[in-house]
Amino acid sequence: MVRVNDNYAKLKAGYLFPEIGRRVRKFAEENPSADIIKLGIGDVTEPLPAAITAAMHEAVDELSSHATFRGYGPEQGYDFLREAIVATDYTGRGVHVEADEVFVSDGSKCDTGNILDIFGSGNTIAITDPVYPVYVDTNVMAGNTGEADDAGRYGGLLYIPVTADNDFIPALPDRAVDLIYLCYPNNPTGTVVSKEILGQWVQYAANNDAIILYDAAYEAYISEADIPRSIYEIEGARQVAIEFRSFSKNAGFTGVRCGFTVVPKELKGRNAAGESVEIHPLWNRRQSTKFNGASYVVQRGAAAAYSDDGKPQIRGLIDFYMTNARILCAGLSELGFNVYGGVNAPYVWLGTRDGMSSWDFFDMLLGECNLVGTPGSGFGASGEGYFRLSAFNSRENVEAAVERLQKRFS
Amino acid sequence: MVRVNDNYAKLKAGYLFPEIGRRVRKFAEENPSADIIKLGIGDVTEPLPAAITAAMHEAVDELSSHATFRGYGPEQGYDFLREAIVATDYTGRGVHVEADEVFVSDGSKCDTGNILDIFGSGNTIAITDPVYPVYVDTNVMAGNTGEADDAGRYGGLLYIPVTADNDFIPALPDRAVDLIYLCYPNNPTGTVVSKEILGQWVQYAANNDAIILYDAAYEAYISEADIPRSIYEIEGARQVAIEFRSFSKNAGFTGVRCGFTVVPKELKGRNAAGESVEIHPLWNRRQSTKFNGASYVVQRGAAAAYSDDGKPQIRGLIDFYMTNARILCAGLSELGFNVYGGVNAPYVWLGTRDGMSSWDFFDMLLGECNLVGTPGSGFGASGEGYFRLSAFNSRENVEAAVERLQKRFS
Repeated sequence: MVRVNDNYAKLKAGYLFPEIGRRVRKFAEENPSADIIKLGIGDVTEPLPAAITAAMHEAVDELSSHATFRGYGPEQGYDFLREAIVATDYTGRGVHVEADEVFVSDGSKCDTGNILDIFGSGNTIAITDPVYPVYVDTNVMAGNTGEADDAGRYGGLLYIPVTADNDFIPALPDRAVDLIYLCYPNNPTGTVVSKEILGQWVQYAANNDAIILYDAAYEAYISEADIPRSIYEIEGARQVAIEFRSFSKNAGFTGVRCGFTVVPKELKGRNAAGESVEIHPLWNRRQSTKFNGASYVVQRGAAAAYSDDGKPQIRGLIDFYMTNARILCAGLSELGFNVYGGVNAPYVWLGTRDGMSSWDFFDMLLGECNLVGTPGSGFGASGEGYFRLSAFNSRENVEAAVERLQKRFS
Repeated sequence: MVRVNDNYAKLKAGYLFPEIGRRVRKFAEENPSADIIKLGIGDVTEPLPAAITAAMHEAVDELSSHATFRGYGPEQGYDFLREAIVATDYTGRGVHVEADEVFVSDGSKCDTGNILDIFGSGNTIAITDPVYPVYVDTNVMAGNTGEADDAGRYGGLLYIPVTADNDFIPALPDRAVDLIYLCYPNNPTGTVVSKEILGQWVQYAANNDAIILYDAAYEAYISEADIPRSIYEIEGARQVAIEFRSFSKNAGFTGVRCGFTVVPKELKGRNAAGESVEIHPLWNRRQSTKFNGASYVVQRGAAAAYSDDGKPQIRGLIDFYMTNARILCAGLSELGFNVYGGVNAPYVWLGTRDGMSSWDFFDMLLGECNLVGTPGSGFGASGEGYFRLSAFNSRENVEAAVERLQKRFS
């Protein structure tokens, strides 16, 4: 008699984005003439930069010829990509990361979920609230939580509220936790933390033998000076942090699929006997056994993001989306919305109006403005009363969205 | 204090293929002039078929243009691929599988490992021995086993020997088990089972409320009539089996990365309360939460494997490798080796000579013939005294390998 993983039964409804998809499809079917503008899912809309498609074409050509064909690659990623990552994202910014500490994958969503494979049960998990749902749901699936309450909070997780009330600065836990998810620039709020604040978290982790799972997928969008781009800019972080990065949002790889995870060799956990255990070999073993490397064609494309041609093209993409973010922020502010984020991240986080719940605001925007955003409460109980708009769209659509908001709210 | 997953400490040495890699690199460094022929890892060597590279180029072009750019795809795979799979691999052969039962992934290694996510602890696992190491290692990691004994057998697993002694036909367990791994055509032995034998396993699973995890990655290599290509050819299998397929070995995708998993909607397990639970929504939830779909470019390439141009090109690849297999089989048989497989699979499985252990035979072949194969014992204790040679290589190398064997053994 096969036993299923009972933890899946604790999961609430669908994963957020499929639920949005269902509501939008229903509305579109009932209103076939509606011109729906989607600022919901954080999905890029601009085509891949030319340097990247050139590299991918070249890689496909390599695979079509005997002399240059490649089969299985290293599970950890090709050296050409690992070395390009380190040279540009780390060494070039004075940060110590070694190429064999970089594990290339098919995306950050997979890595942030799969990372739990190497940790034991019984760890106390802290997440900020609101938060990227994958952190929570994968912990539920792994059995690291209890049941959810009516507000959607799972027993056993430590939720750290980040709202306008605390200027979106996560307070250090008042008790010992083991694994801490931090995402900066933040999804969904678009906010950032200073080196000072991040330093306090690194110190907290060191003091409590905790590990920080640091998601820096939106690092490329940082525009302000002195905002940390990598947690390893903070002294002592190599002893306490794993960093996740993605090519999805900078190079437009949401459909191409590539990301990477940095596991410093200094990082350690404990076994049942309380002995110190290195984390790097565990993740290496996990990836070697349950993964077979990212597609060669994709890795060649990702490496081109670091080329002389690729860098300015990617900069251009980011500038384009950030101009969208500025247009959204300005339009919403003028209408009297409370607006956050949008300066170092492609997400604009706003308070709903008239005390509306996040989902009511979602349904209203969809119904009255034919605009799709993401309900803040979908990211956690502390997101209730907030709403996320994504800057990933055409300029035309973003300007039209602002016009529709003006028509409705001014 | 972060607790690591203590089960990783039970894993023996390295995963088999990295260990082979280390020995070969060491030999090559010490013998820089040696012309090493690798028939070890089952990695394809022929370039991608033209229909596939054409489709991949086209997909890259789509991603480089505004009008045709695509971001996130469905986590389960694009319909164009799911429908092509069903039409050719199933419906076209009179087998009932629906498109939404097909989950496209970045490869079968990932799927056969990740599938354990949806099952609970406490299941009894049966594997054939020798076996693809990923099945075993992922169960060790998931905590489904005890420690390994001196022969490398993990406590708690039911090992079903398949050797020349039983004509490589796995005997039904003499007790109830919950999850059963079957791989046909078999890796590593290259042997197959008849519909009658597979039918007995389906019946056993039905009688015991067990689930069969059926790995059919080498299905395309079946040359004999009446050998089942899919477990769903067997009546009742939709109630008891998950099937894994891959584009790695037929279309040459080992470095491109694409596979798929079929989860029929009839398939059920039990929860803690003993209630029946559908498996399909569990896998759908797992993939939606921890995976973001295979690369669009890759999925377009995979779909081209089913096109009018693609089909004969893939047939050509398989025929090429199977001619290699015949050359290996004939050469080895002539030299008096006991030879198995190689007829419906690209693997030739042979008994070592002079009572040598598998690893001694490996070191001898490497040292004296500069040939790399895979020690049978690396696939399990019952593989001791056997050795795997892969037909994935150029004709020239395969012929040279046979010549070297003739020189050494005749």
